[in-house]
Amino acid sequence: MRVRRKPWAAGEIAQNSHMIHDPASFRGHWKDAFGNDNPIYLEIGCGKGQFLSRNSLRYPDVNFIGIERDETVIATAARRLSESQKNLRLVNANVVDLLDFFTPGEIDRLYINFCDPWPKKKWAKRRLTHRLFLEKYAELLGEHGEIFFKTDNRLLFEFSLNEFCATDWRLSKITLDLHHSEWAEDNITTEYEEKFSSMGMPIYRLEARYEPRNQEK
Amino acid sequence: MRVRRKPWAAGEIAQNSHMIHDPASFRGHWKDAFGNDNPIYLEIGCGKGQFLSRNSLRYPDVNFIGIERDETVIATAARRLSESQKNLRLVNANVVDLLDFFTPGEIDRLYINFCDPWPKKKWAKRRLTHRLFLEKYAELLGEHGEIFFKTDNRLLFEFSLNEFCATDWRLSKITLDLHHSEWAEDNITTEYEEKFSSMGMPIYRLEARYEPRNQEK
Repeated sequence: MRVRRKPWAAGEIAQNSHMIHDPASFRGHWKDAFGNDNPIYLEIGCGKGQFLSRNSLRYPDVNFIGIERDETVIATAARRLSESQKNLRLVNANVVDLLDFFTPGEIDRLYINFCDPWPKKKWAKRRLTHRLFLEKYAELLGEHGEIFFKTDNRLLFEFSLNEFCATDWRLSKITLDLHHSEWAEDNITTEYEEKFSSMGMPIYRLEARYEPRNQEK
Repeated sequence: MRVRRKPWAAGEIAQNSHMIHDPASFRGHWKDAFGNDNPIYLEIGCGKGQFLSRNSLRYPDVNFIGIERDETVIATAARRLSESQKNLRLVNANVVDLLDFFTPGEIDRLYINFCDPWPKKKWAKRRLTHRLFLEKYAELLGEHGEIFFKTDNRLLFEFSLNEFCATDWRLSKITLDLHHSEWAEDNITTEYEEKFSSMGMPIYRLEARYEPRNQEK
């Protein structure tokens, strides 16, 4: 998500208590940042934070981290949070640096919500579900981690299904119309999702867990 | 596919040289029925046979078998074939009896095209991509077999994706709109597919290969 840069953003980021300013310094020690041993769920490209904020309220026994590279967007997310949401932290950084911030297995679940579809074929490697990213996530998540992915973009979903299946992720709860599926009730929406779903567009969703196979093919 | 029973159907089936009357007697010996060692591709629910007939003409070095339980429908398929299509045989039988007709590994590829979606939840076990059927197919296909599946029914496709993924099939070439995908050009259509696609409905498709995983979960 890109928006016009706002002059107040840098100040908000500097003083907001939800912001983590040097994520690499927490590598291997995120439990200290939260002061407990609860599982940590990470959203990459968290936008203005509605999804994470609602999650943090609904699931107080989970810690949430949001990463967003746009300064103004994440500043907006930060200032919408209340002081009491101590189980939620935000990082203004680029997804490609993920492994600098976390040790393998430190993250229990990864959320990828409505990422940029990068529609041209030559841009495929920039899609956050390209197999080169999936490799990174497998390392990040370690043995028991999982990815929850949703998008409104049919071609991105199709691409993602094929990438996950080509690289030893076991998929489940795949739906081609989340809001009319059996998983609609528990769904927490993003800002973007509400807008597109209200226009009648289906939302695609899947869960993925890394399970290497016996033999390479 | 169900149509009104036609009086000529039994006669057509009895005398048409493409019909196999006692498929169980060929179990383990299908190469003899064709007189060569070419791979054997099987379509379950072959309907009036357009898909198989076109395949048999395009791929003379492959043997094709179609199974269809409706007598009038398969009689229609049979009488549309020409004598020269020696690489195509038809069987008037029910899919549940598959393993009575073939030994494990005797079939190299299975086509499931536009099968009945059985939309009510209580009918799920009748869907040809229910995991109980997938188990049968794994046995039928042996180590190197594959399933090519297509449907116009979104909910059936969603169900099928989840069933395949839950049971150790590796999926590839998944598309949510076959006729506008990179795989459109090679596609051979069924009668049903032409009708629904011409109405603007997307056709869903996938390929599946059985690849058991290390550990049971």
